[in-house]
Amino acid sequence: MGELPTRVSIREVGPRDGLQNEDPVPTEAKVRLLNALSHTGVSRIEAVSFVHPKAIPQMADADEVWAAAEKVPGVRYSALVPNSRGAQRALEAGLRELEVVVSASDTHNRRNVNRSTEESLNDISALIAMVHGADGECEVIISTSFGCPFEGDVAPARVASIVDRVVTDGADRVAFGDTTGMATPRRVSDVLDAVRARQADVPLLLHFHNTRGTALANILTALRFGITEYDASVGGLGGCPYAPGATGNVATEEVVHMLHDMGIDTGIDLEALIDAARLAQQIVGKELPSGVLRAGPRIS
Amino acid sequence: MGELPTRVSIREVGPRDGLQNEDPVPTEAKVRLLNALSHTGVSRIEAVSFVHPKAIPQMADADEVWAAAEKVPGVRYSALVPNSRGAQRALEAGLRELEVVVSASDTHNRRNVNRSTEESLNDISALIAMVHGADGECEVIISTSFGCPFEGDVAPARVASIVDRVVTDGADRVAFGDTTGMATPRRVSDVLDAVRARQADVPLLLHFHNTRGTALANILTALRFGITEYDASVGGLGGCPYAPGATGNVATEEVVHMLHDMGIDTGIDLEALIDAARLAQQIVGKELPSGVLRAGPRIS
Repeated sequence: MGELPTRVSIREVGPRDGLQNEDPVPTEAKVRLLNALSHTGVSRIEAVSFVHPKAIPQMADADEVWAAAEKVPGVRYSALVPNSRGAQRALEAGLRELEVVVSASDTHNRRNVNRSTEESLNDISALIAMVHGADGECEVIISTSFGCPFEGDVAPARVASIVDRVVTDGADRVAFGDTTGMATPRRVSDVLDAVRARQADVPLLLHFHNTRGTALANILTALRFGITEYDASVGGLGGCPYAPGATGNVATEEVVHMLHDMGIDTGIDLEALIDAARLAQQIVGKELPSGVLRAGPRIS
Repeated sequence: MGELPTRVSIREVGPRDGLQNEDPVPTEAKVRLLNALSHTGVSRIEAVSFVHPKAIPQMADADEVWAAAEKVPGVRYSALVPNSRGAQRALEAGLRELEVVVSASDTHNRRNVNRSTEESLNDISALIAMVHGADGECEVIISTSFGCPFEGDVAPARVASIVDRVVTDGADRVAFGDTTGMATPRRVSDVLDAVRARQADVPLLLHFHNTRGTALANILTALRFGITEYDASVGGLGGCPYAPGATGNVATEEVVHMLHDMGIDTGIDLEALIDAARLAQQIVGKELPSGVLRAGPRIS
């Protein structure tokens, strides 16, 4: 397989990104899922987001969920925040790993938050300073990094210049979001080539959707660049609600199953993870798109 | 992306492998699907199989389907045959590209045809001679090449020695079947390493299932070995009937969509292919698992 990392860190995003894109579920179900995931051996979990309850009712109970969830030693928990107010809530709740999003596509950013990418970057600069002031870490997620549903292809140079800006502003990590499943091995290569030529050291994380079947091929491509941090969602939780059956987030089991077979350690117990995916399926009350959940591991 | 082939030949297997694993459909529907596919620019189509109608009722009308189908110049059509009797029927029907299957796993071979792998290889030796005698070409498909549902892992050395045997016996091409979706990038590398160390020249074709999400990652891996021939099934036709929603054959649109984005030519018109996938979906009367069919190309 050539030179590949021997260890990969998965951030489980099912409780936040997954459930945020499903019909609302009860607080206790969220806590049960979080606790199950905390005991799979996963190193990181995106637990909640502190967004306005009117904008995203699925996350209205973020404070209660986070307060009730087990904090398992060795697991790093993070929260997504939309702005300084959300960051304040997250910090007050005791979280110290925060994520904030900006879109590489100006059109997409305006449709999401009614601001230009540049305006959002200015806000983020202040937000990073605030998080650092509270001894927290701040990751910047650049959405539409591999393409925009409104603008089409996004120039890798534009993505790279946004990385430059947020690194200058102190971002502790940069994540690339495959917002509508437009990433392919070629686009992943192009973005990583452009970014790594200018930023050799900042930690990078990739977040892929499996909308067009490419998620694991994209991860395979990124592994060859030495990328060791990936988002994934238990069971594939968080499929686009407007396209029945269409897959959104790549399923954590599928990622772990492939990586382990390649001799790449994740620290995760695949059987425990599949149990958590079954729980996720039960919680949302519908079949989730994960092939490994459905078919089981290649050898069990 | 490194050194990759600039052109790939896809063999469309929906009309045979796909429909053989769905509920039976009318003869005229099969002919309509075949004709639609023949006009997509695809270079090869596995059109029918000449199997015993009691064993596989879905293919009982193979002679009628083949007689009625348009034979579009530039498209190579092939048929799967289980034995000499089937080969005779295929040759009499005018087909000159035949495929025959043997399982790398002895247990799997016995369950399928009640013979050992060795006994099947002896039969195949005679069958190849017969096809060559009629100026035909014969491909040997080695199923369970990447794992067996009964035996587990299959030693790549065993797969390679079967390749040696069938090449000695005159096979014009060797295909590796990922029968139950157990292939991963690591297993693909292992098999290709073992085979290419001993057989540098025989044309190789790969047939992947997307059961556990790895199909495109597997193709990406095989491209790095210079493999330029792949099977795929329009719409992902032929999902395992025993696992509702589980995917079987990788969808041709997903393969073509990724390859074209990588600058790898297939000769296929993706929009025409997606139209054919819509027709396939209409014919089987259920949603097919293809992400590109559902979501459309990343940029349309």
